[in-house]
Amino acid sequence: MTTGYGKRVFEIVQFGMGGVGRALFGLIVQHEAEIRQRLGIELRYRALADSSHVLHLDDTTALSRDHLQHLWASLNPKVAAKLETQAGAVRSPGAPSVVATELARLKSTSGGANLIVVDVSGASAEQMIPALTAVLRNGQRVVLANKRPLCGPYEDFKLMTAAAGLGWNRLRYETTVGAALPIISSLRSLLDSFDTIQEISGTFSGTLGYLFTRLEEGALYSEAVSEAKANGYTEPDPRDDLGGIDVARKALILARSLGYPLELEAIEVEPLYNHEMQQMSIPEFMTRVTDLDKTFAQRVSEAAAKGDTLRYVAQIKAEQCRVGIAQVGRSTPLGQLRGTDNLVQFLTGRYHTQPLVVQGAGAGPELTASGVLADILSFAH
Amino acid sequence: MTTGYGKRVFEIVQFGMGGVGRALFGLIVQHEAEIRQRLGIELRYRALADSSHVLHLDDTTALSRDHLQHLWASLNPKVAAKLETQAGAVRSPGAPSVVATELARLKSTSGGANLIVVDVSGASAEQMIPALTAVLRNGQRVVLANKRPLCGPYEDFKLMTAAAGLGWNRLRYETTVGAALPIISSLRSLLDSFDTIQEISGTFSGTLGYLFTRLEEGALYSEAVSEAKANGYTEPDPRDDLGGIDVARKALILARSLGYPLELEAIEVEPLYNHEMQQMSIPEFMTRVTDLDKTFAQRVSEAAAKGDTLRYVAQIKAEQCRVGIAQVGRSTPLGQLRGTDNLVQFLTGRYHTQPLVVQGAGAGPELTASGVLADILSFAH
Repeated sequence: MTTGYGKRVFEIVQFGMGGVGRALFGLIVQHEAEIRQRLGIELRYRALADSSHVLHLDDTTALSRDHLQHLWASLNPKVAAKLETQAGAVRSPGAPSVVATELARLKSTSGGANLIVVDVSGASAEQMIPALTAVLRNGQRVVLANKRPLCGPYEDFKLMTAAAGLGWNRLRYETTVGAALPIISSLRSLLDSFDTIQEISGTFSGTLGYLFTRLEEGALYSEAVSEAKANGYTEPDPRDDLGGIDVARKALILARSLGYPLELEAIEVEPLYNHEMQQMSIPEFMTRVTDLDKTFAQRVSEAAAKGDTLRYVAQIKAEQCRVGIAQVGRSTPLGQLRGTDNLVQFLTGRYHTQPLVVQGAGAGPELTASGVLADILSFAH
Repeated sequence: MTTGYGKRVFEIVQFGMGGVGRALFGLIVQHEAEIRQRLGIELRYRALADSSHVLHLDDTTALSRDHLQHLWASLNPKVAAKLETQAGAVRSPGAPSVVATELARLKSTSGGANLIVVDVSGASAEQMIPALTAVLRNGQRVVLANKRPLCGPYEDFKLMTAAAGLGWNRLRYETTVGAALPIISSLRSLLDSFDTIQEISGTFSGTLGYLFTRLEEGALYSEAVSEAKANGYTEPDPRDDLGGIDVARKALILARSLGYPLELEAIEVEPLYNHEMQQMSIPEFMTRVTDLDKTFAQRVSEAAAKGDTLRYVAQIKAEQCRVGIAQVGRSTPLGQLRGTDNLVQFLTGRYHTQPLVVQGAGAGPELTASGVLADILSFAH
């Protein structure tokens, strides 16, 4: 009854122990027995790395499972912790070296195990691409929640996806766009079944979703930004969200998944503050953001006069990518969207009169970790 | 670079040559070279069956590919055709026998090929379950667009899914609910990642979606039914849609996928016509349907008075399934839905303030066939 996979072992090397990393670690440690029982696969941690340290786990002794449980008990998922405080952790020699060690160990001890390297870090493309490409070239598997390795130079992206096999089969990255929402998998099914994708558009920032909902409700721009910051929806520096670059990265991932050979710099991005505000300190920016209130209020009321509303939208169409404010009808799916939810719509050859729409919470460590786990387990299906 | 699948062959036995069956056959015959190139897998038809005949294809000679191309050329995808007019077709001895022949042939000639039995027919659970269960027990694969094999007695469902391996891994049935919309796959990801599903609700009938949109716009019930029939949205006998049983089957499939041991008869279904109208001829029904205009107009205006609108909704919650008219807020995703689109929302432990929503066209031969192809190809990923 278990033909085709029997008892399969997947060994995991995880980069990143931030909010997503800790949530993922907790999910796997808490559910490993159930995963074995339900799906017939065994997930076994091999190494955990954060930005400075790495902990190689030795499962040749009985230590490993105890070690993981101990580590899990010592980590508060809500509080950042450094691996350097853990017994056995050593200073990281960098991702390529960590991966090389694990690939070598896998080869020398192999009982048919498979490796999955999970990148839930915020490391740069330069730091991660060589390591991830090496993993894929060795016939092993990669799951990404980190967008950056997919947003480096297009040549690197091409090499990495080519190394992932036909259909990029050993690379999964669902959570790089809209957390656990089925966006990349939907795109893949559309392409697999020979649909023609005419346009992908949507909102891919909960922070900016909140902001534009508040603007629609009549809040001043500066009020909305302050609230979003106070609610913890923004990065410590709100300009990291308001600049639009994070949305542009998601648009780039969708565009490249469609086969468009785009660079990040080629995406037209409309930031939500003026160029001269880039150099200010955070407190200064938070004071001066009121300068923008009038402009935004005017745009909101111009849209309202036409029965429309504003959303911060990414649009991918015929090799063109644009990220910025869009005026949309209030009764459209985008116009109806409220709060921090994400929404993506696919207009295709088959979904041509009305788009295929996926909508829901598109951020947060728990949701992202759950999507990463689903990606990991998809290798077992 | 192709570790893990190399050149894999999937042999296909297809039951059903109606609209979906012909569209699927066309998709595969037209794209087989591209599928081989993109995904490294070869799809090879072994047998095609309709309700009366079966055509076994012999690929030990060069005949097969020519034969398929010839067959495709002779079939008009828009016009129903009978296999009995095809050279080589024989009277079908029934699905179990057709499948037994192919399983035996597969064993005797095996070069590591895999079998996928595709049921895109409208055959009954009794006709199909023994055949499908045999396929799964032999370690092979099944893809269903036909809802009925999943809606027989729960005991049969349990045996069939148990035979599909851990995680029901060798059984796919995405298109039984909402055609190609990612509904079953989303459900699977939620369950795989240990989310807790509190409620699934949605509209799963394009026909009834159209009807309730027209009612909201002020049409009389009898007008809306006549229009739906004239537009080809209904079955030849509109009561097959208005009775709600097709929606109930979809609700049952979702409920059983959640692990609820329900029978179809346990689902509370609200039909959209009176019991005594069941025995009428179609023309008589179409005349007498005006009797219902007043009741429906009253319900619509009662809802409108509260700012609500009516939708025909399936609701699966805590082992309870209900299918019928629901009064929903106009600004909710269900209230905003227009026309024939389907919409499903998952309220879960993680999607708890707002649901995960999937929306789009949920019917039609091309969409359903595309979803079946995506299911077939998912075995290669």
